[in-house]
Amino acid sequence: MKKSKVGIVGFRGYTGNSLLQILSHHPEVKIGYLADKEKGSYPEELLLLKEAKPIIAEEFDPGKSSQFADLFFLALPHTISMLYVNDLLKAGKKVIDLSADFRFSSVSIYEEWYKAKHKNPELLNQAAYGLPEIFRDEIKKAKLIANPGCYPTAVILGVLPLLKKGLLKNEIIVDAKSGASGAGKKLDPSLLFSAINENLKPYKVNSHQHAPEIKFILEKIAGHQIDLTFVPHLIPMNKGLLTTIYLSLNKEMKTEEILDLYQEFYSSQPFVKILPKGKFPQTREVVGTNYCSIGVTLAKNKAIIISALDNLIKGAAGQAVQNMNIMYGWDETAGLL
Amino acid sequence: MKKSKVGIVGFRGYTGNSLLQILSHHPEVKIGYLADKEKGSYPEELLLLKEAKPIIAEEFDPGKSSQFADLFFLALPHTISMLYVNDLLKAGKKVIDLSADFRFSSVSIYEEWYKAKHKNPELLNQAAYGLPEIFRDEIKKAKLIANPGCYPTAVILGVLPLLKKGLLKNEIIVDAKSGASGAGKKLDPSLLFSAINENLKPYKVNSHQHAPEIKFILEKIAGHQIDLTFVPHLIPMNKGLLTTIYLSLNKEMKTEEILDLYQEFYSSQPFVKILPKGKFPQTREVVGTNYCSIGVTLAKNKAIIISALDNLIKGAAGQAVQNMNIMYGWDETAGLL
Amino acid sequence: MKKSKVGIVGFRGYTGNSLLQILSHHPEVKIGYLADKEKGSYPEELLLLKEAKPIIAEEFDPGKSSQFADLFFLALPHTISMLYVNDLLKAGKKVIDLSADFRFSSVSIYEEWYKAKHKNPELLNQAAYGLPEIFRDEIKKAKLIANPGCYPTAVILGVLPLLKKGLLKNEIIVDAKSGASGAGKKLDPSLLFSAINENLKPYKVNSHQHAPEIKFILEKIAGHQIDLTFVPHLIPMNKGLLTTIYLSLNKEMKTEEILDLYQEFYSSQPFVKILPKGKFPQTREVVGTNYCSIGVTLAKNKAIIISALDNLIKGAAGQAVQNMNIMYGWDETAGLL
Amino acid sequence: MKKSKVGIVGFRGYTGNSLLQILSHHPEVKIGYLADKEKGSYPEELLLLKEAKPIIAEEFDPGKSSQFADLFFLALPHTISMLYVNDLLKAGKKVIDLSADFRFSSVSIYEEWYKAKHKNPELLNQAAYGLPEIFRDEIKKAKLIANPGCYPTAVILGVLPLLKKGLLKNEIIVDAKSGASGAGKKLDPSLLFSAINENLKPYKVNSHQHAPEIKFILEKIAGHQIDLTFVPHLIPMNKGLLTTIYLSLNKEMKTEEILDLYQEFYSSQPFVKILPKGKFPQTREVVGTNYCSIGVTLAKNKAIIISALDNLIKGAAGQAVQNMNIMYGWDETAGLL
Repeated sequence: MKKSKVGIVGFRGYTGNSLLQILSHHPEVKIGYLADKEKGSYPEELLLLKEAKPIIAEEFDPGKSSQFADLFFLALPHTISMLYVNDLLKAGKKVIDLSADFRFSSVSIYEEWYKAKHKNPELLNQAAYGLPEIFRDEIKKAKLIANPGCYPTAVILGVLPLLKKGLLKNEIIVDAKSGASGAGKKLDPSLLFSAINENLKPYKVNSHQHAPEIKFILEKIAGHQIDLTFVPHLIPMNKGLLTTIYLSLNKEMKTEEILDLYQEFYSSQPFVKILPKGKFPQTREVVGTNYCSIGVTLAKNKAIIISALDNLIKGAAGQAVQNMNIMYGWDETAGLL
Repeated sequence: MKKSKVGIVGFRGYTGNSLLQILSHHPEVKIGYLADKEKGSYPEELLLLKEAKPIIAEEFDPGKSSQFADLFFLALPHTISMLYVNDLLKAGKKVIDLSADFRFSSVSIYEEWYKAKHKNPELLNQAAYGLPEIFRDEIKKAKLIANPGCYPTAVILGVLPLLKKGLLKNEIIVDAKSGASGAGKKLDPSLLFSAINENLKPYKVNSHQHAPEIKFILEKIAGHQIDLTFVPHLIPMNKGLLTTIYLSLNKEMKTEEILDLYQEFYSSQPFVKILPKGKFPQTREVVGTNYCSIGVTLAKNKAIIISALDNLIKGAAGQAVQNMNIMYGWDETAGLL
Repeated sequence: MKKSKVGIVGFRGYTGNSLLQILSHHPEVKIGYLADKEKGSYPEELLLLKEAKPIIAEEFDPGKSSQFADLFFLALPHTISMLYVNDLLKAGKKVIDLSADFRFSSVSIYEEWYKAKHKNPELLNQAAYGLPEIFRDEIKKAKLIANPGCYPTAVILGVLPLLKKGLLKNEIIVDAKSGASGAGKKLDPSLLFSAINENLKPYKVNSHQHAPEIKFILEKIAGHQIDLTFVPHLIPMNKGLLTTIYLSLNKEMKTEEILDLYQEFYSSQPFVKILPKGKFPQTREVVGTNYCSIGVTLAKNKAIIISALDNLIKGAAGQAVQNMNIMYGWDETAGLL
Repeated sequence: MKKSKVGIVGFRGYTGNSLLQILSHHPEVKIGYLADKEKGSYPEELLLLKEAKPIIAEEFDPGKSSQFADLFFLALPHTISMLYVNDLLKAGKKVIDLSADFRFSSVSIYEEWYKAKHKNPELLNQAAYGLPEIFRDEIKKAKLIANPGCYPTAVILGVLPLLKKGLLKNEIIVDAKSGASGAGKKLDPSLLFSAINENLKPYKVNSHQHAPEIKFILEKIAGHQIDLTFVPHLIPMNKGLLTTIYLSLNKEMKTEEILDLYQEFYSSQPFVKILPKGKFPQTREVVGTNYCSIGVTLAKNKAIIISALDNLIKGAAGQAVQNMNIMYGWDETAGLL
């Protein structure tokens, strides 16, 4: 069987490195191309490969690189990805963009939050939002995937069943927590070991750029406006993300009813786990996997939903590979178990 | 000047040890008596003292020990403290109880949550709830102080100004986070290093025993019933506690107005710090101090209040010493700066 | 192809759990039997298996269980394993014992260090010491493997090439460091999160039970007595082990010569990596793998050897599986890459 | 009583901040001057001071600043301190330099290891090496103190009694471990949280700049050449430093004899603690204090000495204040207990 060739642009960051690890064991693909501006040592993951080794470039050039891969993962900073997408699509390539550049069909929300003029607003409507649990059909047909943010993945999956059934009031409160790899490899004093270890810190209180992403997707699904309060916190650990979501229901329900709803809603989804009554996820159980694990309980007419995932896998690289599997019609779990 | 003599019962636990550290440097007191069932080495803190060394007992006997101290700190497990309080009071001693045994004037709430019959329900009304920012006058006159829980201290101080002014709807959501020392020194598999490190875990979701304590005190202040949703999380760090509180206001306000209200409300309180607009506390800034630090912002008509403190100091031992200072009419900050 | 059936006795400890994870993905085996005195939830690793699920017992009975497996991994405390080995061997089973019970062909050293009378001294000579890099031939033929300790694996692999070539003076100094999982799941106050986090602690200074194991094996190889100084330290991290070894050479050498010697000595070993000049291992690079990574440099006529491995994998479960692969004549790396 | 005025140049780094904390509670001094190139918020420590607040400068100018302090602490990078020392001394000021610039009376060793031409070689002989346990008399008379490095303090104090008594062979092996604050606040990828957490890493193996400092001082004391092997390791914790020292004795001794020797040698030193037989220091016991704690045992004719201290206190700022106390003839422990 001939394997499909893929490329990773930005393979030395946390997300790119996660992609490299997953893809180097993927049964259907071969890594044909790697690029990163940062210099570094030869990736360990590739040393053991028996097949031809990928091209490794320091400067990504969509034209020159296009012969080495059919699909490109862009693990680049926001506002940089969009410089390359158009050329890749024109060259007939598939693109999975892990930045925020194509997550909003609204140019104005993007430009407000990412402080940059969008280069290719005309492509926004061609991009599928890569959350397979909702948009699998769009993903199947798309050439360009906007891979979701880590917090949005956890929150949207946590809220979705109640939202879809029309059981929610408009108000959603999300108290979010993430390990330090969520911030990437930036050289910032606030990311030094001594700044994070033995410390707990709220950040971007009600001003995190994932808030408009969550709101935008939830409103698209609900068809009406939603009030979202979103407070993220930095946790002294490397990996893992957990969101505690407080929802007001518009009718009286029992915990069992909600659990049944969630179980059924996600019954055919390979990477969403609903925990039994009285159980809630902890990050350790999902770190290293592509699962999003969800626990539910009721406090009066308020639902408490807790969802956890690995911010670099289901929150980034794993979900990107899941999207690739769908685009090619492969087993959705290929390379991810 | 003759120093007052104090005793610590349970001085080898985390809280008792914190008391020992603070009291061994306190300008007005001398430690006359220490007790703990656990054996252990001679406390380092006392080696350097020039004054007479305290009696150290393995078995606490209120009768025999009463000559060695005028005030006793009980750093004992819930349901154990109440075995001793009556005898101490009868012997004319002052008592600061760091357990939950005298925090509720309602016997039934106590018995429901602590699964034990109360030995001295008649004393419940004599006990002052030791949160000086609200009950300073009661504390001054009391012989028995029920020192508040760590979460209740952070939450009540965070909510108080808006509650007192009648600006809140009845619904309060608290997403709470604490380091591992909050759980004490129990030998439980869930408290081993490998269970907590690199993990984030919600626990006692909407069933933590501090929830009824918060609710009880807030309702007492408000004079009406309050809906409280309370979800605590265990953070992989030793010390520090932070609560993120989501409140619905019953009128439109600006962040500045709320900040002004908080500034004024706490202007004469030595251990509450209100942060300027746009700033929020992180645990590192309060660990090792008796401060509760509070940041405030608005999201539409919802207030987000973030309060942080050291769970063993303002959340336990430091607050107990603050209460002692008030009972004796000393400078409230003595030994605490 | 028919898979061989294996059993794990003590599958809920850290080592047993590591075995379970590796074996549930192993291409040649099927887990037929699991036992553990501790109750617990059904192992996640097995939920996805399509093949027949293993028997799970609370009480291990060698007689009753023998039909469910051809090889048993004993992940039991020292002095407990030896209660079962004889019965299993008599029933024609293969045994890989992860305790220390069969690591010494000398009964007296065992009894001195493990404070217990040995039940089956006659079996000591039948056991192969399961360090494939030295004893592969014995392992191939053996029915009983004494799987090495974690520190001994790192130290012996670090010292071996120089020792074998007769280049060492008799004196070996080992400064060893391990993450907390090395101590197992014991309920001991010194293993609580607050005792280990933000702390660095030497323990069992020159009195650790792995010292006689290292000494015994090295002397067996060298054919003469060796002076070993061994000081282990507990590091505030979950996994990973690193030993810094100081050796006196009996002739002048260059770093390059030593590196060449190590490269050649280990050239056919799939799980030993020699780092290039100027590079030294860090635990992060080996955690999650079955590799032992070694860096070497010279300080005058002293060699500094630094070796690192994952204490639960190459230091325990991974090495056990490597031994099984050798016993059955399978690819030595099966299930381990 | 009139307090002496001191200045801190570089008060926003880890060491400078530690100085600020200690000095703001020191009974004999008043902080008259602070400087740092980095901008930042007003130091919390000073908010509560009742006395006149210090001048805070962004650019340190020895001329303009000299009126605001009698003694200057220079908490500056190596090679920067020496730009200012001469001017300060000429202006009649005392200087405690926490960099390495004046630690070596040999210009050539300094220039070899710090890769810079020394500006004031003529001052090297006027500087006292600020380790009070050996050089108290020189410190008393000096105007310029070269405050020792953190590792040298731990190692020299650990080796000193045996060295002074002529009981050592020439060979000293030091396996050193430090928390992350030892590396300062540099923006380096290797100091990010995700690089250090859950990792153990040897660094500058036998090439750390503290090795020649240790060697230089020990040789000065011993009067003969010494072979030093020095391997430091980075530990995933904020604070604390521990060195495990392996020494060859030139005669047979018992552990008790060595302990007696150490006890007596340090009996009048306020900040060195010798632990009883069988006890060894852990970093937690010294973090936050100015103590160096030492444990000793024997392995054949080899002594194992373990010493621990807080790298920012006895290893830097605390020791600097101890030196100041000696220079002024104050109680040596003032501000340090």
